[in-house]
Amino acid sequence: MKHSLFIAFFLCLGSFASAQQLTSPDGNLSLEFMEQADGVPTYRLDYKGKPVLTSGRLGLLTEEADLTRGFKQTNLERASVDNYWNPVWGEYNRVRNHYNEMTVTLEQPETGRILNIRFRLFDDGLGFRYELPLQRKMNYLTVKDEVTEFNLTGNHKAFCIPGDYDTNEFAYTTAPLSEIAVDMEKRIAKKSYESKAEGGLTVQTPLMMKSEDGIYLNIHEAALVDYAGMLLNVDDKQFKLSAHLTPDKLGKKGYLQLPVLSPWRTVIVSDDARDILASQLIYNLNEPCQYEDTSWIRPMKFVGVWWEMFTGEGKTWAYSDFYQAKPGITDYTKLKPNGHHPANTAHVKEYIDFASAHGIDGILVEGWNEGWEDWASYRKDRQFLFNKAYPDFDVKELQRYAKEKGVQMVMHHETAANAADYERQLDEAFQFMVDNGYHAVKTGYVGYIIPRNEYHSSQWMNNHYIHVARRAADYKVMVNSHEAVRPTGLCRTYPNWLAQESARGGEFETMGGNDPDHTCILPFTRLKGGPMDYTPGIFETRLSYYNGEKPNERVHTTLVKQMALYMTMPSPIQMVADLPSNYARFPDAFRFIEDVAVDWDNSWYLEAEPGDYITVARKAKGEDEWFVGGITDENSRTATIPFSWLPEGKQYIATIYEDGKDADWDTNPQSYRIRKVVVTPKSVLKQKLAASGGVAISIKEADKAEMKGLKTIR
Amino acid sequence: MKHSLFIAFFLCLGSFASAQQLTSPDGNLSLEFMEQADGVPTYRLDYKGKPVLTSGRLGLLTEEADLTRGFKQTNLERASVDNYWNPVWGEYNRVRNHYNEMTVTLEQPETGRILNIRFRLFDDGLGFRYELPLQRKMNYLTVKDEVTEFNLTGNHKAFCIPGDYDTNEFAYTTAPLSEIAVDMEKRIAKKSYESKAEGGLTVQTPLMMKSEDGIYLNIHEAALVDYAGMLLNVDDKQFKLSAHLTPDKLGKKGYLQLPVLSPWRTVIVSDDARDILASQLIYNLNEPCQYEDTSWIRPMKFVGVWWEMFTGEGKTWAYSDFYQAKPGITDYTKLKPNGHHPANTAHVKEYIDFASAHGIDGILVEGWNEGWEDWASYRKDRQFLFNKAYPDFDVKELQRYAKEKGVQMVMHHETAANAADYERQLDEAFQFMVDNGYHAVKTGYVGYIIPRNEYHSSQWMNNHYIHVARRAADYKVMVNSHEAVRPTGLCRTYPNWLAQESARGGEFETMGGNDPDHTCILPFTRLKGGPMDYTPGIFETRLSYYNGEKPNERVHTTLVKQMALYMTMPSPIQMVADLPSNYARFPDAFRFIEDVAVDWDNSWYLEAEPGDYITVARKAKGEDEWFVGGITDENSRTATIPFSWLPEGKQYIATIYEDGKDADWDTNPQSYRIRKVVVTPKSVLKQKLAASGGVAISIKEADKAEMKGLKTIR
Repeated sequence: MKHSLFIAFFLCLGSFASAQQLTSPDGNLSLEFMEQADGVPTYRLDYKGKPVLTSGRLGLLTEEADLTRGFKQTNLERASVDNYWNPVWGEYNRVRNHYNEMTVTLEQPETGRILNIRFRLFDDGLGFRYELPLQRKMNYLTVKDEVTEFNLTGNHKAFCIPGDYDTNEFAYTTAPLSEIAVDMEKRIAKKSYESKAEGGLTVQTPLMMKSEDGIYLNIHEAALVDYAGMLLNVDDKQFKLSAHLTPDKLGKKGYLQLPVLSPWRTVIVSDDARDILASQLIYNLNEPCQYEDTSWIRPMKFVGVWWEMFTGEGKTWAYSDFYQAKPGITDYTKLKPNGHHPANTAHVKEYIDFASAHGIDGILVEGWNEGWEDWASYRKDRQFLFNKAYPDFDVKELQRYAKEKGVQMVMHHETAANAADYERQLDEAFQFMVDNGYHAVKTGYVGYIIPRNEYHSSQWMNNHYIHVARRAADYKVMVNSHEAVRPTGLCRTYPNWLAQESARGGEFETMGGNDPDHTCILPFTRLKGGPMDYTPGIFETRLSYYNGEKPNERVHTTLVKQMALYMTMPSPIQMVADLPSNYARFPDAFRFIEDVAVDWDNSWYLEAEPGDYITVARKAKGEDEWFVGGITDENSRTATIPFSWLPEGKQYIATIYEDGKDADWDTNPQSYRIRKVVVTPKSVLKQKLAASGGVAISIKEADKAEMKGLKTIR
Repeated sequence: MKHSLFIAFFLCLGSFASAQQLTSPDGNLSLEFMEQADGVPTYRLDYKGKPVLTSGRLGLLTEEADLTRGFKQTNLERASVDNYWNPVWGEYNRVRNHYNEMTVTLEQPETGRILNIRFRLFDDGLGFRYELPLQRKMNYLTVKDEVTEFNLTGNHKAFCIPGDYDTNEFAYTTAPLSEIAVDMEKRIAKKSYESKAEGGLTVQTPLMMKSEDGIYLNIHEAALVDYAGMLLNVDDKQFKLSAHLTPDKLGKKGYLQLPVLSPWRTVIVSDDARDILASQLIYNLNEPCQYEDTSWIRPMKFVGVWWEMFTGEGKTWAYSDFYQAKPGITDYTKLKPNGHHPANTAHVKEYIDFASAHGIDGILVEGWNEGWEDWASYRKDRQFLFNKAYPDFDVKELQRYAKEKGVQMVMHHETAANAADYERQLDEAFQFMVDNGYHAVKTGYVGYIIPRNEYHSSQWMNNHYIHVARRAADYKVMVNSHEAVRPTGLCRTYPNWLAQESARGGEFETMGGNDPDHTCILPFTRLKGGPMDYTPGIFETRLSYYNGEKPNERVHTTLVKQMALYMTMPSPIQMVADLPSNYARFPDAFRFIEDVAVDWDNSWYLEAEPGDYITVARKAKGEDEWFVGGITDENSRTATIPFSWLPEGKQYIATIYEDGKDADWDTNPQSYRIRKVVVTPKSVLKQKLAASGGVAISIKEADKAEMKGLKTIR
């Protein structure tokens, strides 16, 4: 386009009105975009006629250009989309993508610079992003700040963790916004790699809130690509939130070159908490799957040589004792093994035997490779070798044995947060996996990041995680990343990125414990970005950690709640986390974990209240099998479970795994009962859950003979 | 060792005297190590009975431990070594490694920490390093400072460039130390990626100096591995120098874990400047070759699609015009070619034809791969693709054609200093090279480094360059790195790392020019660390740069001096840098470049004075061919060239390429004459060199018929 035409084009559009409206397909949500004085762009959001976000600013401040003011609206485009897509795996086999869209073009008459803001309003919420199209007056940008505001209508109850550039592994605070600061400060995990956000009060996203009039709000971001991860600044007096981008350690919040598409800023809204859990908005705002062939991506359950290092008597990831091995070890054959290194061939075979006998797909082995003697140094250019096993771990023999037993080996790549060196070794590491029959990897990023100017959530690292997932796909390797930036739905685009940790997982039961309401919050927060490898299924709830006898170092649930987590914490890769010897003591209860699916045709959220309880039913993908899971917080409760989501005209046998009558997470966690009943789509089950208890139900079509003598739920 | 024994061991050694002496094998150099008050370790160095370095401090200051004071000497070990090794390539086919060694063990009684300092005294100079053996009271260290001092005896004449963390591409200052500050400030290149060292006055190493009483001193470092590059702080009043380690952008000067071996600090000393050039001290202090098979490492000459981008009429590395191509280009087939992109198949074939016709081994092509339209952004996560050629560069056809013509393709990997992304792509890049018949690569690091906390000379980057060289070796690829940290002799250890730039090379004749004495200094400074890809051989000395007509933008030598540079700037990879069309105009002179070797059995430095002149003779490796090269600075001179280094009992024909009688770099640079004479080992040639002129001589055994009518030099 010639420059003269270009200018004329905008002049003729210069008379647009400054306030623009957009409504959701069902009409419940409405958004207003408006330019304020000085050409400051703002927006507000209403739900069912009442404000949920009052007027808040939009814009981007960079070293090269101030894109927060001085704008005139010069164009507006609208679109409506209603289509479906099929996830490779997930809670649903078909997702509706239904929204109305409005794209506002803003120009600064003084500078000639152009900023587009694209809004998408779904029935379940809002997504918007900044778009900087190619233009003559801007090219390179260094981000100083994103000014996006989310201005709340009151002192909502928040479910939140502190804003931190490096970690998400915090216990949740549940409190009115005015009170979160004090509570969060108490709960900050004492982690060596904690990097609390600078400035005032901040929280991590997804941030879950509930207003006094019962509106549920979830604020997060979608499609975090080539951009800094977003925390939220919290004004706990005015109840205003604003974007807080993760800087690098040089203080820069992003390096951009046009064209730029920011991540989507997302606001999921409903007056029914179940809608928050069911929302697919964040996935809808991510790009479709980038891989042509996804046949090699297979959801799985796995056991692991892992839990015993947390609970066992001094068992270690390392092959030899720390002090003895300190000598920047290169030749492990000359080191004396410490005798308590579980990642050895014979012991791994026991796990393979167990997995094979119980139909568990895979086995993870941590501590198999050289480097653990001295791994969190932050001083080493090379920490781990990803193609060099300890002398007692026979890669080839285990490949042979696992194949013979029909079990998949899952590799572990702990990087000690040296992402730079991981990238150096990445091709070799993946080739080594392929050569030795591994098709899934658990990655880890414990510690401060190398390159040393980066945080776990800064821009370069966000690209790193994606690079690893994409490169893994070249080798048909599935990825389960721990300690990475919290997810933003990118597993739609890169579905071999099965799950992440990026929150306080089950392992923390051995490190201070997880509150009984922890897993009643995670599905409303962390899980909105994607599945979590929470590591459920701990049947032996009495723990000792490094010989400690601290009262909180035990599992804060009943045994049955651990089973229910397979339903309420959906993930295409689920650990069967306890020791085989513990499962052997509860074979009837373990049956549920053997049976439960990890991929689904459909899901129905039956009951939900953040921090209190969740009940969900799901149909296994491609199978006529259904499962129900319900959990509660520290309060026992009676769940009301309808079965109307079952196909009509049939009867079903439901095997109910329930807390024993006297069960209680604190006093009697391992009490459980298993009963079989007949259910129909008309049935409604009243089910008692113990304090921090649960219920897990597996359902199949009824065989007449099996039904005999069974009670039918009305 | 049990702890009690450990302590006893030191107690019994606690009575060592605090001053220790070490002398060089020939007795000319003597070193004294002494503990000063407060247990501060110091050293001094004498040459032929006179001090060259007065008492200077030694030590390392870290965040975790102060290793600069409070020491008691608890052990001393001495050793003498005299052996030989054979370089894979170089100026000599056999190098003597002859030194006396003294290792001082220092313990801090208060902390129990131990520091060893290992001194090696060769006939040609001193090397010493810090060694931190494994010990109980230290493990991880973060370097704050290295306090190593080099205290001079007077206001020496220095040949130096400014201390800079990112670049070495400066013109040299020649001045007494008291006057370098003002001169260097004037000469600082106006480069966008310049990062002048912080604090006071600093200079880069190798630093060449000459004392008033005629002692030549060269200070540098050897074996820079996993450590920050060293600049020198200059006290230009007291004439004291001290180590200035390159920090990262977080201000840390290194991250160490015990055991630690620092790079060697080197001081080459002689009263004969030729000894400085001939010194192999820095190579001797590097580790032996790490590769078992080196048969694939082959020194070479190469032409390149390169010089025309500096001198041509708007010719570009980029395939399409900048603005047009800016759109974060992904599909180059849809872009309009700009029509002045020399890296196209047809044009490259012309170079291949030329190389083939003239026996030049290889051809480098710059601008062959996607990304040049917009390459110095510092904002892109991915700048270049190293396996994707522009549409007009047919990789497969050129592979076929080059093979048919017997010419090796040399690849170019400009990284735009995004070392992180280069590492991401490294395996793919080298595999692509191997798959397409490339076995040598020129790497480039123009711009600010990504990871963004690093400088070109900071610790992480120093490891990066080594990583690239080692990984290249896995693919049997030779490396010629530009804009990397200046070398420290690591090409002994990794001999596929043939050469580096890391100084102001020939290309600067188009960017401000190189002073006539520039190449009379480089062999005394930059070249002490390893060969330089200076790109000699520019016959057409009148240049225009981007249509500029600036008086300095021409070659500051005579044509003959360009030929002599192949001898005075020895490198196993030498560019034949001018355009084929220019060589075609001077076929008789070009004959020397065709003939000259790049690898040597032996070398004899005949005359030398830093900044003034160099004359050197060499024997081609494995051939009965000898070559002589001589250059001078802006002053014409008469070189005195003995031939006593030729084997006795024979006569030889010498082809002398000399400056024409009226030659002068400024007024008549292209005047030259070629004459043949007979020489014997008794001959001494008086040879006139023009201002910034040279002489180049090729010598073969005399054939009687050829000798007929030739004058014999007496």
